[in-house]
Amino acid sequence: MDSVNVPDVLRYRDGEVTRAADDVAHEEPLEIRVRGRAVSVTMRTPGHDDELAAGFLLTEGLIRQKSDVLRIEPCDRNDEGNLLNVLLAPEVHVDFDKLTRHVFASSSCGLCGKATIDAVRATFPAVESDVNIDAMTLLKMPDAMRQRQSTFDLTGGLHAAAVFDDRGKLLVLREDVGRHNAVDKVIGHALMNDLMPLDRQVLVVSGRSSFEIVQKALAARVPLIAAVSAPSSLAVQFAQENGQTLVGFLRERRMNVYSHPRRIRF
Amino acid sequence: MDSVNVPDVLRYRDGEVTRAADDVAHEEPLEIRVRGRAVSVTMRTPGHDDELAAGFLLTEGLIRQKSDVLRIEPCDRNDEGNLLNVLLAPEVHVDFDKLTRHVFASSSCGLCGKATIDAVRATFPAVESDVNIDAMTLLKMPDAMRQRQSTFDLTGGLHAAAVFDDRGKLLVLREDVGRHNAVDKVIGHALMNDLMPLDRQVLVVSGRSSFEIVQKALAARVPLIAAVSAPSSLAVQFAQENGQTLVGFLRERRMNVYSHPRRIRF
Repeated sequence: MDSVNVPDVLRYRDGEVTRAADDVAHEEPLEIRVRGRAVSVTMRTPGHDDELAAGFLLTEGLIRQKSDVLRIEPCDRNDEGNLLNVLLAPEVHVDFDKLTRHVFASSSCGLCGKATIDAVRATFPAVESDVNIDAMTLLKMPDAMRQRQSTFDLTGGLHAAAVFDDRGKLLVLREDVGRHNAVDKVIGHALMNDLMPLDRQVLVVSGRSSFEIVQKALAARVPLIAAVSAPSSLAVQFAQENGQTLVGFLRERRMNVYSHPRRIRF
Repeated sequence: MDSVNVPDVLRYRDGEVTRAADDVAHEEPLEIRVRGRAVSVTMRTPGHDDELAAGFLLTEGLIRQKSDVLRIEPCDRNDEGNLLNVLLAPEVHVDFDKLTRHVFASSSCGLCGKATIDAVRATFPAVESDVNIDAMTLLKMPDAMRQRQSTFDLTGGLHAAAVFDDRGKLLVLREDVGRHNAVDKVIGHALMNDLMPLDRQVLVVSGRSSFEIVQKALAARVPLIAAVSAPSSLAVQFAQENGQTLVGFLRERRMNVYSHPRRIRF
């Protein structure tokens, strides 16, 4: 269900017009609820929604460990599977203030406190992992991802995120119309399959790296983030400040290392 | 200020390691406030922030016309220019419920009403424009964008959005780390420069088209949206339902038309 068939697409090629069906990336809204509150509505590619919810709650700082989640289930009132209820263990204290992206409308100007720009810089300690990855191992990761992707993505419309171990083995790959969702899904997978913390693993993303990606990686304790394309300035700054190794333009036989290159063996 | 220089980047090329400075796309948070409430915190590329704020408020349905905005100004307490106050005309009724992406945390489950998935499908009427664009004119637009971009984007990290008139003249182009921000900026520019409604114009985006892009285009009354890369399923569905012509893979001498092809002359 990663793609949806559009039956009647007009194709123009070099002056010729034909009509044919075409596959496009599947996009649907997902609402995630915790203790009766909608904490997120995100546009995502359906599939692995429980991982997406678990990863989202972890990277937003609402939960800390697998045992915090009792159950993740669809809401009965919704037929399309676009509404998930996350049941947390009763002892989990949910700090709704930690939601960095979704609380702004409800806070008045003088009182907004945590729910402002400062809150966007979430509160996870820096990583200190001494893991060490061979440059050749790193350079092979985008190809390994693409091989796995090609069976899924016929649409050209999906972002991919993957977690590799320090010897280059692909542990999990997920695709989504939203880059941050793909990252939440692999992190949620790791959480639910007892792979946390990811402090000896590598997170690879198919496109660009932004603040949001590097921050989510920090929540999962990832020491090395590599992107096939360019990083943003805040991604670089955040990685530098938080002890994370940030690689950009990882493709063919090249890469740029923007922070903490000590974890790569050349 | 579209890019930021990172002084010490390790570059690996074919077995050789060097160190050099590198330019990366500038990313900073922007908080937009209306009547004392923070209505959005978005990670954006600084520059044209007033356009971003105006475009955001229009595409979210909070304002309808230029005269709704009295003034857009930085908040005094913030030195970095990452906090904007939008002063609206007193007669403007602000329906904070219309905020589709930012109100979810504050609504309880049984009562969330508008602030749920349905609200993501915003409430603008379908477009009915009879504008007609020559296919050759359309095919030249990505090149026109790229020529303009090349002077700005050295980083490989920016999305671009542009508005063209029906004869292929580029009216405005903006770049941003966030695709939706680039669209908000060109729409905000159009609003503040009396170009609205854009019901005879074309919106071109450098990457993929998602639900969010097509919905923002609808708010500005854009009848034809063209993307250099793939659309999502919800982008196609939304465009079909709302009378918008949606073009994908507009590159070299090809394009796919996913909805309402009547507006393109082949």
